[in-house]
Amino acid sequence: MWLDRVGIPIVQAPLAGGASTPALTAAVLNAGAFGFLAAGYKTPETVAADITTLRTLTDSPYGLNIFVPDDDVDPGSFAPYLDEIAPEADRHGVTLGEPRYDDDAFGTKVELAVSERVPVVSFTFGCPEAAVIRLLHGAGSEVWVTVTDIQEAEAAVAAGADVLVAQGSEAGGHRGCFLDRTDREDYGLLVLLQLLTARTDVPVVATGGIGTGAAVAAVLTAGACAAQLGTAFLRCPEAGTSTPHRDALTRYGRTRLTRAFTGRSARGIENRFLSEHTSAAPVAYPQIHHATAPLRAAGRAAGDPDVLNLWAGQAYSLTDDKPAADLIADLSHELATALASASRRVREVGLD
Amino acid sequence: MWLDRVGIPIVQAPLAGGASTPALTAAVLNAGAFGFLAAGYKTPETVAADITTLRTLTDSPYGLNIFVPDDDVDPGSFAPYLDEIAPEADRHGVTLGEPRYDDDAFGTKVELAVSERVPVVSFTFGCPEAAVIRLLHGAGSEVWVTVTDIQEAEAAVAAGADVLVAQGSEAGGHRGCFLDRTDREDYGLLVLLQLLTARTDVPVVATGGIGTGAAVAAVLTAGACAAQLGTAFLRCPEAGTSTPHRDALTRYGRTRLTRAFTGRSARGIENRFLSEHTSAAPVAYPQIHHATAPLRAAGRAAGDPDVLNLWAGQAYSLTDDKPAADLIADLSHELATALASASRRVREVGLD
Repeated sequence: MWLDRVGIPIVQAPLAGGASTPALTAAVLNAGAFGFLAAGYKTPETVAADITTLRTLTDSPYGLNIFVPDDDVDPGSFAPYLDEIAPEADRHGVTLGEPRYDDDAFGTKVELAVSERVPVVSFTFGCPEAAVIRLLHGAGSEVWVTVTDIQEAEAAVAAGADVLVAQGSEAGGHRGCFLDRTDREDYGLLVLLQLLTARTDVPVVATGGIGTGAAVAAVLTAGACAAQLGTAFLRCPEAGTSTPHRDALTRYGRTRLTRAFTGRSARGIENRFLSEHTSAAPVAYPQIHHATAPLRAAGRAAGDPDVLNLWAGQAYSLTDDKPAADLIADLSHELATALASASRRVREVGLD
Repeated sequence: MWLDRVGIPIVQAPLAGGASTPALTAAVLNAGAFGFLAAGYKTPETVAADITTLRTLTDSPYGLNIFVPDDDVDPGSFAPYLDEIAPEADRHGVTLGEPRYDDDAFGTKVELAVSERVPVVSFTFGCPEAAVIRLLHGAGSEVWVTVTDIQEAEAAVAAGADVLVAQGSEAGGHRGCFLDRTDREDYGLLVLLQLLTARTDVPVVATGGIGTGAAVAAVLTAGACAAQLGTAFLRCPEAGTSTPHRDALTRYGRTRLTRAFTGRSARGIENRFLSEHTSAAPVAYPQIHHATAPLRAAGRAAGDPDVLNLWAGQAYSLTDDKPAADLIADLSHELATALASASRRVREVGLD
């Protein structure tokens, strides 16, 4: 496992959708942790260019995250929602984007990963077929699959996944569930870790609401082999996070799960758009993502945070503006201190 | 702090509502951990009798949990819900109970705690006034307050709380929030611990979805001084858990937060009543609790789990039938192993 060769058991999450940059991933890798590039939303050509750029910045093994396409849905199921949000676009002088289905160039991105012999390929929104995983294994890639419950974990293990990325409901951005059903249970991270370690020996990377070294140490203690952090990196200067998104991360707020922006469940800081449209938002990804894209772009350009998807995990108030290398150094120090402190406590009461 | 004198950093949660028994609390205390009696729902006379019984079973310091009363609400706000669930009572040959407001004899129970000089008094559903906490301090009691976010924690510290019980959203049974607002953020436990330890030096007991020794070790590593477990004790032979509730804990299911049974947000295993009535259930505690009590009693008597409040945390599938002392011994062993394993890992990568 690549993680065994990485000194620091911290993983920078892919952060698809703007925050991901080769500079951020390179800074993380060069600091001795592990990091991902995001293939999601990008053309295969852009992803190839990102890999090329990354290779000029570091020799370290890296990861690439690819979205597994959802099934298409009946346009009738989301037409009323488009009617509801059309006035939002009007107010910003744009029209909603075409609510089209696409597979985010899944096949081409897998082929790219194979031809580039990407060291670690992680998947989100589903589990690729066993044949795809065999293809990647054949190219020397390790395969990680994001899971949110036991059933998904068992499917991923059966398909040949080398590592499970256990995503708790605290996580910012999209829930990685295979099917975005409304009757799913959203497990907290610590529960999910307990359920997975009780049922499988496949290594687990923990993610969701981890913002401090003490929390990194906690998930290692719960049995994870590493902690994956996303929101914690959003305010790094190397990240591509938009200015209104960075600003929102510095202010008090509450986060909520919503399908309002993309048609798939995701956690963001509550703003007007989220408040007003979450209850009506359908399960329709990527159709709603494409529909709201022009509106979100207009909001970013205008510095209007009220129509933006302000993805953030529940611990976002603990984020800080600091370079990725400093963040990793601080987290590493804190995690060692936290473990030593807990070990001392347990020794004192005679339980060791 | 009493916890400093307790060998094992594990706390048995109060488990108000049937599962709490002096026998369970005594077994926990005699095993070297800390345990609570529940005052909630009981008459002060019954609580006094429980304390007397406990004292025949153990000399150890113990805790008593008291509910802080909610504000009364307009009966018009829950009348439609009573109409909705009345046919459920009809089907079981009972009538709904009177949807009355009461304060669960808060004042008398506090007086009892003072006169009995109860070593630890914990509060749920709110924070008592500073004067009440001073009264308890004067009687030599330590005061713990259940909190679910930063604002509640700051209020509890300001009122004089000695210990915060940080309840994550994974927890079974009632959410301990001061006000059961529908627009609150339900923090996962690991996030809540990070937020609290960043803002206060008051000792924190972690609770919510902790079902294994590894998870106990994880919350200690995250900075908690102890882990409080509730669901984990429900299947102990010493617990008063009803047979249909015990049976439900052995079967696969999903948990959800609901106000359907009591008018206050609580997590239970999904059954028919929960599925059908959660969306309409109002914020009206304890009125809805009293209204559904005869229906729930009839369901328990008939062995019909579909109208029962099957309180359970998200990790309930990890529970087992074993005496409390065995459970605590197993958890203690696991927690030490988990900490040693994480410490070894961190040493190997040179971070210690």
